[in-house]
Amino acid sequence: MKNKIVMLCVAISLAISLASAQDVKEDFKPSVLNQPGQMYPQVNSQGYARFKIVAPNAQAVSVSLGLGGRGGTVLKKSDDGTWMGTTEGPMDEGFHYYHLTVDGGTFNDPGTLNFFGSCRWESGIEIPASDKDFYALKDVPHGHVSQVLFPSKSTNTSRRAFVYTPPGYEASGNKRYPVLYLQHGWGEDETAWTNQGFAHLIMDNLIAEGKAKPFIIVMTYGMTNDTKWGRIGDFKIENFQTVLIDELIPYVDTHFRTLANQPNRAMAGLSMGGMETKMITLARPDVFSHYALLSGGTYAPTDIKDKSKLKLVFMSCGSRENPDKVKQSADELKAAGINAASYVSNNTAHEFLTWRRSLRELAPLLFQK
Amino acid sequence: MKNKIVMLCVAISLAISLASAQDVKEDFKPSVLNQPGQMYPQVNSQGYARFKIVAPNAQAVSVSLGLGGRGGTVLKKSDDGTWMGTTEGPMDEGFHYYHLTVDGGTFNDPGTLNFFGSCRWESGIEIPASDKDFYALKDVPHGHVSQVLFPSKSTNTSRRAFVYTPPGYEASGNKRYPVLYLQHGWGEDETAWTNQGFAHLIMDNLIAEGKAKPFIIVMTYGMTNDTKWGRIGDFKIENFQTVLIDELIPYVDTHFRTLANQPNRAMAGLSMGGMETKMITLARPDVFSHYALLSGGTYAPTDIKDKSKLKLVFMSCGSRENPDKVKQSADELKAAGINAASYVSNNTAHEFLTWRRSLRELAPLLFQK
Repeated sequence: MKNKIVMLCVAISLAISLASAQDVKEDFKPSVLNQPGQMYPQVNSQGYARFKIVAPNAQAVSVSLGLGGRGGTVLKKSDDGTWMGTTEGPMDEGFHYYHLTVDGGTFNDPGTLNFFGSCRWESGIEIPASDKDFYALKDVPHGHVSQVLFPSKSTNTSRRAFVYTPPGYEASGNKRYPVLYLQHGWGEDETAWTNQGFAHLIMDNLIAEGKAKPFIIVMTYGMTNDTKWGRIGDFKIENFQTVLIDELIPYVDTHFRTLANQPNRAMAGLSMGGMETKMITLARPDVFSHYALLSGGTYAPTDIKDKSKLKLVFMSCGSRENPDKVKQSADELKAAGINAASYVSNNTAHEFLTWRRSLRELAPLLFQK
Repeated sequence: MKNKIVMLCVAISLAISLASAQDVKEDFKPSVLNQPGQMYPQVNSQGYARFKIVAPNAQAVSVSLGLGGRGGTVLKKSDDGTWMGTTEGPMDEGFHYYHLTVDGGTFNDPGTLNFFGSCRWESGIEIPASDKDFYALKDVPHGHVSQVLFPSKSTNTSRRAFVYTPPGYEASGNKRYPVLYLQHGWGEDETAWTNQGFAHLIMDNLIAEGKAKPFIIVMTYGMTNDTKWGRIGDFKIENFQTVLIDELIPYVDTHFRTLANQPNRAMAGLSMGGMETKMITLARPDVFSHYALLSGGTYAPTDIKDKSKLKLVFMSCGSRENPDKVKQSADELKAAGINAASYVSNNTAHEFLTWRRSLRELAPLLFQK
C-alpha cells in the first residue's frame, strides 16, 4: 500500500513536471533592458526568463532569479562553451534585479544593463506587463531629467539629485510648478526612480493624456548614514532630513521655477524611502502637504497632529505584500476626516512594477486643490 | 664561455626584476571610480593598478589591462578563494576601460563602475593625473546636465541627448548662450563625455576661474548606422547629419535659451566623433563656425571652401599619437589665413585624459569674437 502511494506520487509529480515543461512557449525575445545588440537574456510571453552565458572553462554557472526560495536557476553547459537555462516558472511582471554566480564569484550578466540595487550595480531584466503601455516611451512631449549637484554643508560635499521638469517647462515663461520629492528604497540610489521606475515616462504619458497636473519631481540619495555603507540598522533620519529640508529644497527653489510653499510640496518614497517619508513628513508638517508611502508602511490617525494643513495621504503596496493593511489604514484616516487613498497593485510583490503603478495612481491625486 | 654569458644574463634579468618588484610602492588606494564601499581595484602613487576578484572555484582569472600587447594582467589565486594581481608597470594617467576574463568568459569587475565603450558597458579605472584638479568636483557653482528625449522622424523614435547648461543659466532671465555640439568616439555613446570625460566638471571649473565663457554643451549618440551594431565600416554620415542638423538642433534651439545662429554654434568630437565633425562641418559651414577634432584627424587648407564664416579650427591629440600632424596642420591653416590652434596632451595616447585636457584647452577659445 505504502509503495503504491509512493508510486502514485512519483507518477503525478512526473506528469506535472512534463506538463509544465510542455507548457513553456518557445516565443522568447530579448529583454528590453538588454545592452545594445545583445540577444540574451530573453523573456517569453508567459513570463519565463532564459539566460545564456559564455564561460567555456567554468565549472558552474547559475542565475539568482527563479522561483522563490529555490536558489535561482542553474544553467547547463553546451558543447560550444555556452551555459543556458530557463526559470522554473513564470516571473512576476515588471522589473527584476539579478546576478550571476560563476564558479563561486558574483558577476553581472554581460548581456543586460545594470541598475543600482542592494548597494551595488546589478543586472536587470524586464518581464513585459499586461499594462506596460503606461510606462512606455511614446511619441508624446517629453520632460527633461536634469542632474544637479547641490552644495551640502552638513555632509561637506556636493550631492547629486535628478530633477524631472514636465513637458512645456522651458516654454512656459514665468509659470511656477508644485514639487514632489520622491525617494528610492534601501540599497538603491537617486538613479532608481528613472532607471528602474521610468518615473519620467510615466509622468510624460499621464500629462499627455491630461490625467495629471504637470509638476516637478526631485530624486536624491536618501542613505546618508556614513558609518558603514548601506547598513539600515545604523540609519538615522536626522542626517537625511537636514540634507533634504535645509539644503536640497532651498537649492531646488532657487534653481527651478517652483511654487515654493507647503501646499505645493509633496513627499513620497518606496520601501525604506517610505519610512523616511513618514518620519520627515510627521516631523515637518510645515514643509509638506501631500504624503505617500509606497510599500513603505502606513499612517495612523494618531500620527497626524494637525490635519488642517494635510491635503493627502496615499498608501500602496503589491497584492502579495500586506494589502489589507493599507486599505484599513486609509479607512481609519478617512474616518478621522483626513483625505486618504490606498492602492493595491495586482499580482505583484515588493518590486518596481508595484511602484510604477503606484506613481501612476498617485500623480493624478497630487496638487488638485 | 657560453654558459657564463647565459649565467650573466640570468643574473642581470633577476636583478632587474627584483629592482622593479622593489620599486612598486605599497601605497595603493581604491580607485575613485569604484562602486560604493568597494576596496578594489586599487591604484598606487606610481600608477600601478591592483585587482582583487572573488571567484573561489574558478580555474583562471585575468584582467584586460596591463602593459601594451602583453595580454593583460594574470591574477593569482589565494587560499581564501580570491584572485589578485598588479599590472606589470605603471599605467597612463587618466581613465581606462577594462574587463575580466573568468574561465574564458568576459565579465565586468564587480568592484568598479561601468562605462559605455566598445559598444558595451565596461569596467573603468582612474589613474590620478598630475593635473587632475581641473576635472575635480569642487565647491564651485555647478551647471546642470539634462537628459532630453527629442523626436526624430528620420529614425522613427525619440532619441536621447544630454544638455549641459552652465552655472547661472536658470537665474539669468532671458540671457541666451552659444552651443557646442560635442561627440563621443566609436563604441561609446552620449553618456561618455560626462561619465568618462567629466565635461560638466571641467566646464564648471573653467567658468568659476573666469577662463571660459559660459556656453551650452549638447551630447548625443552619433552611431546611427542601423544594419549592425557598431560596425564602423557600415557608417554613413548622412543619417547622423540628418538627426543632428534637422532634428536635434531645432529641438535644442526651441527648448533651451540658445543663440541660434552659425556664429554661436561649434562642433567638436573625439576619434570617430572627430571624423563626424569634419564631415558635417565641411558639408554645412552655414551651421557651425567653430570646428574641433580631438584625436580625430586634421583639416587641410583646401578643405575649407569659404573661410569668411569660419572662426576657429582646433585640433589635438596625445603625445603618443601623431602630435606632429596636428601641429603641422594648424601651421598650414594659419598660413592660409585661418584662425587655427593645436594642442598635444603630454604622455597620453588615444584615451580620455587626452580628451579631457583637449576640452580644457578648447573651451577658452570658443565664442570669443
